[in-house]
Amino acid sequence: MGSTTGAARRGAGRRRLDPGRLGAFFRPRSLALVGATDASRWSQATFENWRAHAGDRPVYLVHPRHRVVHGQAAYPSLSALPELPDLLFVMVPTEAVLGVLVEAADLGVRHAVVLTAGFAEAGPAGQAREAELVALAEERDLVVLGPNGNGFVHASVGCCPYGLPLPEPLRPGPLGIALQSGGLASVVLAMAQARAIRPSLVVASGNEAVLEVADVLAYLVEDPATTAVALFLETIRSPKRFAEAASAALAAGKPVVALHVGRSQAGQAAALAHTGAVAGDAARTRAFLEHLGVVPVDSLEDLLATAGLLAALQRGPRPRRLGRRLGVVAVSGGACDLIADRASDEGFELPPFPAATQAALGERLPSFAALRNPLDVTGYVVVDPTLSLRALEVVAADAPGTFDTLLFQLSLPRVAPADPSPLVARLAQVAALQAGSAVPVVLQASGGGDLGGFAGELAARFDLHLLDGIEHGMGALGRAMRWQERRERRLDRPPPPPVGTLAPPPGARGVWGELVARGLLADHGIPLVPAETARDPEEALAAADRLGWPVVLKLVAPGLAHRSDLGGVALDLRRPEELRAAALRLLELAARQGVEGAGLLVSPLKRGGVELLAAVQRDPRLGSFLVLGAGGTLVELLADRALLPLPAQPDDVADALTGLRIGRLLAGARGRPPVDQQALLAAIGALARLGQALGDALDTVELNPLLATPEGAWALDALVVWATPAAEADPSPSR
Amino acid sequence: MGSTTGAARRGAGRRRLDPGRLGAFFRPRSLALVGATDASRWSQATFENWRAHAGDRPVYLVHPRHRVVHGQAAYPSLSALPELPDLLFVMVPTEAVLGVLVEAADLGVRHAVVLTAGFAEAGPAGQAREAELVALAEERDLVVLGPNGNGFVHASVGCCPYGLPLPEPLRPGPLGIALQSGGLASVVLAMAQARAIRPSLVVASGNEAVLEVADVLAYLVEDPATTAVALFLETIRSPKRFAEAASAALAAGKPVVALHVGRSQAGQAAALAHTGAVAGDAARTRAFLEHLGVVPVDSLEDLLATAGLLAALQRGPRPRRLGRRLGVVAVSGGACDLIADRASDEGFELPPFPAATQAALGERLPSFAALRNPLDVTGYVVVDPTLSLRALEVVAADAPGTFDTLLFQLSLPRVAPADPSPLVARLAQVAALQAGSAVPVVLQASGGGDLGGFAGELAARFDLHLLDGIEHGMGALGRAMRWQERRERRLDRPPPPPVGTLAPPPGARGVWGELVARGLLADHGIPLVPAETARDPEEALAAADRLGWPVVLKLVAPGLAHRSDLGGVALDLRRPEELRAAALRLLELAARQGVEGAGLLVSPLKRGGVELLAAVQRDPRLGSFLVLGAGGTLVELLADRALLPLPAQPDDVADALTGLRIGRLLAGARGRPPVDQQALLAAIGALARLGQALGDALDTVELNPLLATPEGAWALDALVVWATPAAEADPSPSR
Repeated sequence: MGSTTGAARRGAGRRRLDPGRLGAFFRPRSLALVGATDASRWSQATFENWRAHAGDRPVYLVHPRHRVVHGQAAYPSLSALPELPDLLFVMVPTEAVLGVLVEAADLGVRHAVVLTAGFAEAGPAGQAREAELVALAEERDLVVLGPNGNGFVHASVGCCPYGLPLPEPLRPGPLGIALQSGGLASVVLAMAQARAIRPSLVVASGNEAVLEVADVLAYLVEDPATTAVALFLETIRSPKRFAEAASAALAAGKPVVALHVGRSQAGQAAALAHTGAVAGDAARTRAFLEHLGVVPVDSLEDLLATAGLLAALQRGPRPRRLGRRLGVVAVSGGACDLIADRASDEGFELPPFPAATQAALGERLPSFAALRNPLDVTGYVVVDPTLSLRALEVVAADAPGTFDTLLFQLSLPRVAPADPSPLVARLAQVAALQAGSAVPVVLQASGGGDLGGFAGELAARFDLHLLDGIEHGMGALGRAMRWQERRERRLDRPPPPPVGTLAPPPGARGVWGELVARGLLADHGIPLVPAETARDPEEALAAADRLGWPVVLKLVAPGLAHRSDLGGVALDLRRPEELRAAALRLLELAARQGVEGAGLLVSPLKRGGVELLAAVQRDPRLGSFLVLGAGGTLVELLADRALLPLPAQPDDVADALTGLRIGRLLAGARGRPPVDQQALLAAIGALARLGQALGDALDTVELNPLLATPEGAWALDALVVWATPAAEADPSPSR
Repeated sequence: MGSTTGAARRGAGRRRLDPGRLGAFFRPRSLALVGATDASRWSQATFENWRAHAGDRPVYLVHPRHRVVHGQAAYPSLSALPELPDLLFVMVPTEAVLGVLVEAADLGVRHAVVLTAGFAEAGPAGQAREAELVALAEERDLVVLGPNGNGFVHASVGCCPYGLPLPEPLRPGPLGIALQSGGLASVVLAMAQARAIRPSLVVASGNEAVLEVADVLAYLVEDPATTAVALFLETIRSPKRFAEAASAALAAGKPVVALHVGRSQAGQAAALAHTGAVAGDAARTRAFLEHLGVVPVDSLEDLLATAGLLAALQRGPRPRRLGRRLGVVAVSGGACDLIADRASDEGFELPPFPAATQAALGERLPSFAALRNPLDVTGYVVVDPTLSLRALEVVAADAPGTFDTLLFQLSLPRVAPADPSPLVARLAQVAALQAGSAVPVVLQASGGGDLGGFAGELAARFDLHLLDGIEHGMGALGRAMRWQERRERRLDRPPPPPVGTLAPPPGARGVWGELVARGLLADHGIPLVPAETARDPEEALAAADRLGWPVVLKLVAPGLAHRSDLGGVALDLRRPEELRAAALRLLELAARQGVEGAGLLVSPLKRGGVELLAAVQRDPRLGSFLVLGAGGTLVELLADRALLPLPAQPDDVADALTGLRIGRLLAGARGRPPVDQQALLAAIGALARLGQALGDALDTVELNPLLATPEGAWALDALVVWATPAAEADPSPSR
């Protein structure tokens, strides 16, 4: 994208994209294909997709020279059409796109899909062209999807202005899908079909010059046909807009699952290359999404499995609430083993069947069956195909009080058997049992994502959702369960208290070392280890006597960072002669390194406790983040970090601490007493409020280590990095 | 299984199961179905599976009363058959199985599949029945597959005595599959078919009373149709036998990929329940497999994707050798992003295209294409379907020197298009390019595992292997590449030197604390921190003066373990009065805790360095393991462990250290000097030799911490746990 002007204009224009307007955009009653030609398979696919689903809603073909295209009369221009079309689908050459949009606007057409590429993804000339398009859209109140996008597939209303061949049959369902990669949309549609996952609306947003994934999400929240949303994201172009839509989705009980690419540096290069999107730091984006209640996943398989399950659960008169106590009826012992492994990964328990259930199962299953959870109904199911359903009936009837989720494995044939009626009857029973069960029953296709043909037809007929095998299915089950849990927790609690803004203090530029930072931090309630400054060994000695031995001596100077690496710290000084020697060494070091304004800081040595890192980092696009992790020398070793967008709820902070690898130490592992959790949370809370209040003025404020002990929490060292770089003359060594 | 007698007999019987004998077992020219009946779908499926593939090889049906079964004349008994069948397929009731086998043996039939369940998986009575079966097999020289197994599918010779419906068409190929779960075999067959992965021989080994997965593996190593093997394992029943077969597979260049279940406790319960298999500790089993060159995976999807790819690579006149420099031609930008992320996870690099390649691509691709690796050929491929193949031609021609693996995305339709000829012609070109390319070209199905129908037919026609989408495909590519790398490294190096056996020293029972263990360890070359014993504060003081200050003081007693948790250690004692006070405290502690034979151990304090844990643990089934990890207080915190079966090669030990989270500290992170790697490896080597030589006498010998410093490596504490428990009278507190 790149153009600030474009972004600003886009921002201004977006105010008009309310869901009502988008409802009209995504439900056109007529289509004009501009640039239609028999030579283009895009043209052909778009024409056929529209005709296959739109009933008697017309599609007009526009080409300057061709009289007949796709066997239908074509028009030489938009103005020659018999009526104003609701939507344009533009596939003219790159240079002609803007002209077509101007002509359309003059005529009063306000909605367009631009399939043509050669815009922001194609170098500076393309970026300039896209900026023009954005400006035009704003001036003429146009809603444009693309450019460099394939359009959309609105399955729930049979409206498919989409430029690539569609896998048929297209069965409408509850899952909304938005992708920032057009080519991938077709792959995802085919994958969804193979998994019997049925979409409501699929949108390939292309370069997002005007319409963004955030807008599509906002529309899907309002769309009654959609109960969950799957997103493929290369970047979050307008974080604020996205956050609003995601929050609305959470409030509405519509889960959003997102696959965000760009974890790897190489991945970021690829994302940059092909849509001009600027991929943010992957970890921050993930934290941003999770904070909004969006479920992050790492593969297309998990995207579809998770969103597909959630769409099925949140559908119907009332959502089906999963819980952690899982009962399983499976069709092989091997499947039981795999399910048990994956259930444990995902945080499910597998309670044993109650005695009464075991007794009833014993009457229905062969004598050699092991009546355990997960239940293998044994190979006898081949002889008696009703076996596993009858086992499920027993388990489901006894489930309340023991289980709060049931999992039932089902094998559906791809090709219809000679006599499908027993299978069809069984599926009707499964559907009835599922509808009537007090505990939610989740179905699992035993072999996973291959439900094409007959299996897909059956799933659609009985409106059944089947998990995609064990690996992706169990992952989806765990993510869905945790989403429901988190959502309830979030809706139950009050919003975090508002944090005001704070003007940056005088001289807020460059790097502030501990000496300068202490005042600011202390003023805002961050507990710091006591310290006194000293100019020479004798002053240090006097300070040590006042503060209490043993002490720590640190070299300080405005803007001095990473002094440990320089050797600028002396720990555990127990005697006057040790302190004197250390003081001389540090002052010599400062002189040798040319550190200006150097002094000494004397602090009492704090022993024991757990060293944390606590920081606030500002992302210019995604806002302020609280960073928590193992501190001191363990920082790099452990790579033990949690990221929370601000403002954060205290219980989210507590959860983040618990989730750290060193979380166990805080609770008092290996016979140690637990640290003072309240003092620790208070210190982190003060840091978070200060960091957030400073907003864009701040780059980073970091306490490392923040020492948590049973007696309290204190920052032993601190650093502030301002967003404004130091002026040339300022001393700011070694960042 | 449980019965020692059974296990011993099985061990004795197995000597006769050479691959030649198994060749005959798996290629019967005639089959007798004993217990055949129209009422059983097992019977029907077995009959139909045989008839569908066996050509004119006969199947005889045996039932005591029925005259006609499955529309064919049946015989009342084995003795009534017109010829001796090569193989029995036994599905009579549980109680009748042994009688049938006796009758068969009397007649001279020596090979049987037993489908009937109710043996070792079904409680003590079943276990006794299985022991009888094992004894019978030994006495009468029978090879039995099962019981509680579904038989096998020998696709490469068209021989399918298999009790469940087979997904058709069954296309033979290069992948051998053995599973310890019969029901799962059908799921895996269906999953393989959906991925166009074609099997040579599929065996469901059931309870493995006689024939084990290890035997099947040994046979597959000899089988010319098989180029790779996929295993589903609940347990490794005969580790030695398995190790021999796996080593033979590695030497033969036949990769083995294994999914071992039972990671979770819950999973272990499920495995115990349904085949009577005793699942070993999951981490040790994984280490055991990896050490043998077996590729471990965690899902059925990854099992098939990895083994399928390796089967294709290792096929043909010479295996195709993958390398880390990856060039990619993909059909969407989103796919490029995902591939880049996953490639980086898997250790691939994505070098840029050379200038000449870029220029040639520029001539073939639309002007708006970004000529980067991974390459998005742009949506224009819809207009010109030859686009991506033409891009691949350019990349492949220029690949040598830049890339050593090429990845090419391909979308195959499930249903044949109206005119398939252009697609068929393109696939022929792909196959030709793949065959002629200097750099291996791996194909990837863009949407993954849904290659049924027409797509599967095309893949078979041109003998193409397609990776299962991006997530599983990239994982498979990484695992295949690393398997090839490791195999080369292993074949290049000499075997580890043999380690003799060592009789356990006198009194080798219970737990030996540091005091007792030091002598044994020092005698075998393990470097220990210097230490002197002391009975009272004055002796400790004299020792400290000899050893040098500061010192560490430890409470020692025979069998005293985990003394840190008791408070039995005083660190960093700098002055006589500190040492005296500490000595008195420890002696009082010993008196209070009733520790008998307590004394003090004085050692010089070692500062700095990296604290490791190094241990040898004996698994009664899988042998001795070297355990390496973060030591000292970090042990539990980091869960940073590596496991290596012994004997281990020094470079495997070095790799294991490097792979640890704390590996970076050993190399000298944060400006520290690196530790003395040679001294560290020597200490670990001495420990490994001692631990291995002690064999079954040992439970655990542990150095924790083993301190690695730039000056050398020393154990600061040690513990020996013997396999023989302490006699009642022995002091062995607090294990």
